[in-house]
Amino acid sequence: MTPLPTEPAALLARARADDRVALARLLSYVERGGETAMAVAELAYRSDVPFSVGLTGAPGAGKSTLTDRLITEVRGGWPEAAAIPQVAVLAVDPTSPFSGGAILGDRVRMGQHTLDPTVFIRSMATRGHLGGLSLAVPDAIRLLGAAGLGVVIVETVGVGQMEVDIASAADTTVVVVTPGWGDAMQASKAGLLEVADVFVINKADRPGVREARRDLEQMLDLARPGAWRPEIVETTATGGEGVAELWRAVARHRDHLVGSGQLAVRRSDRVAQELRRVLLARTEVKVDELVAGEEFTSAVKALAAGELDPYQAAESLLAE
Amino acid sequence: MTPLPTEPAALLARARADDRVALARLLSYVERGGETAMAVAELAYRSDVPFSVGLTGAPGAGKSTLTDRLITEVRGGWPEAAAIPQVAVLAVDPTSPFSGGAILGDRVRMGQHTLDPTVFIRSMATRGHLGGLSLAVPDAIRLLGAAGLGVVIVETVGVGQMEVDIASAADTTVVVVTPGWGDAMQASKAGLLEVADVFVINKADRPGVREARRDLEQMLDLARPGAWRPEIVETTATGGEGVAELWRAVARHRDHLVGSGQLAVRRSDRVAQELRRVLLARTEVKVDELVAGEEFTSAVKALAAGELDPYQAAESLLAE
Repeated sequence: MTPLPTEPAALLARARADDRVALARLLSYVERGGETAMAVAELAYRSDVPFSVGLTGAPGAGKSTLTDRLITEVRGGWPEAAAIPQVAVLAVDPTSPFSGGAILGDRVRMGQHTLDPTVFIRSMATRGHLGGLSLAVPDAIRLLGAAGLGVVIVETVGVGQMEVDIASAADTTVVVVTPGWGDAMQASKAGLLEVADVFVINKADRPGVREARRDLEQMLDLARPGAWRPEIVETTATGGEGVAELWRAVARHRDHLVGSGQLAVRRSDRVAQELRRVLLARTEVKVDELVAGEEFTSAVKALAAGELDPYQAAESLLAE
Repeated sequence: MTPLPTEPAALLARARADDRVALARLLSYVERGGETAMAVAELAYRSDVPFSVGLTGAPGAGKSTLTDRLITEVRGGWPEAAAIPQVAVLAVDPTSPFSGGAILGDRVRMGQHTLDPTVFIRSMATRGHLGGLSLAVPDAIRLLGAAGLGVVIVETVGVGQMEVDIASAADTTVVVVTPGWGDAMQASKAGLLEVADVFVINKADRPGVREARRDLEQMLDLARPGAWRPEIVETTATGGEGVAELWRAVARHRDHLVGSGQLAVRRSDRVAQELRRVLLARTEVKVDELVAGEEFTSAVKALAAGELDPYQAAESLLAE
């Protein structure tokens, strides 16, 4: 085996030829950010966009097991006419940006797929990417598409705002709840209602499924008068029950997106948001250059002495 | 009574003469942001800085009751030589920016102070302030100082990052835990350990006080080799036990800040952070002007077509 190149274009050529080590290195570049990450983005954004599925929900809802089962479904349940896509899983935990330990532990449960060369599983952390995960994840999705992986499942731990943002930046967003998860208010409070394209009631072998479904239906009645009403699918991921139906529901949503022209609209909105984030990250760098400068130090002294207020100070700093 | 003016300087003159309605209107200006808020800031930053105490901790730790009791202490427990300061309480809940309902409900419990003209209690929300609560709260603290209130207690609901940031921007930060609150890990995880100047174990009539204290001590042994070791005070806010001691601990920390010169350092660091935030908020406005422009729309089209990547697009947009 020839040694791994370091240059992004050479690595991508290897990744396209199913070299997973090369792909992993490119993803590390994306995580680390900086000039190399931008070089990767430059290549990735010229390729096809993969179909992305976001999976989010409270910790303990069984997302990892569900993802594991979904991989099997994607590999087996793709429409016959089409070539079976390679599948990538990005497991994202914004709360532990540097270790990713918990998530890697979860991934061990996906053991059955680790030897499948058509499945690529990777924990994702941000190790300095300008703009953090909200920029690194879209870049990573693009990269996976450029490497030939047709379906990317983005699984997030927890339901913080960043997780919700990341999962909802996928083409189809799956929100996982459990019968014991509590009332509909929680999903609504966490902003999950607005982003869900498909709801899953996982652990459906437990009591309370009917109540959970009723709560979700009521929420949807109240809150989503729009064109697409999310389907509610019941699964028991540990045994695999309902997972085929879940993937069919995801596929129906994708068909709806394509058929209605919404896919293009969504993706265009998404690149607009990405571009805005890059602009903000860039201007933050420029602000921090200002902050490191002598004029900033003088302004702080004037502020502390009560000779200025921060708005005036900011105006004069920005004017220069 | 003459009708309330709308002009900030006139309102501040009234607020300085103990007109609480005028002060409340100024605070509304701060919350709403915009040009008027900046005019308020311009006035406020030229006045004395009040002594600010941040109070944070998990929901249900009894912060509101503790604040209520603290007000009584501040009014009664101030050093005799000094004039008794007027006290303000800012109750901040970043998670419900528009209603503030829960917090206002809590405030009803402070009933004993609502008729005291020397105490000013106010829920704080952000209603459009550029930069949100992390800018609005420092502005509000300055304003309260300018209006003659010598002590400002900032109480936050919850322990999200924003709450921690807000509470830790005070001169003295009090972190409230309870015996049932769980192990020291939680405080450490939430970043509370780093920001605490004083720890309170509230509800100290419940079992587990000794364990909570031991956990905190162990954490402090491990994590805080610095000059100031936070005192740990036990209180039962409902009955008032320990609250006098808590206020004395706060006063000892304040004396330490003044005596060591750290107060000036902290305040200077704080205005530097405020100024950085204003700069970021200002540049965000400029970014959004860009986003609203035609060139941004063209760039998004080029991105969606795979002709550009977001980093190149951002560079060329910023270059103009």
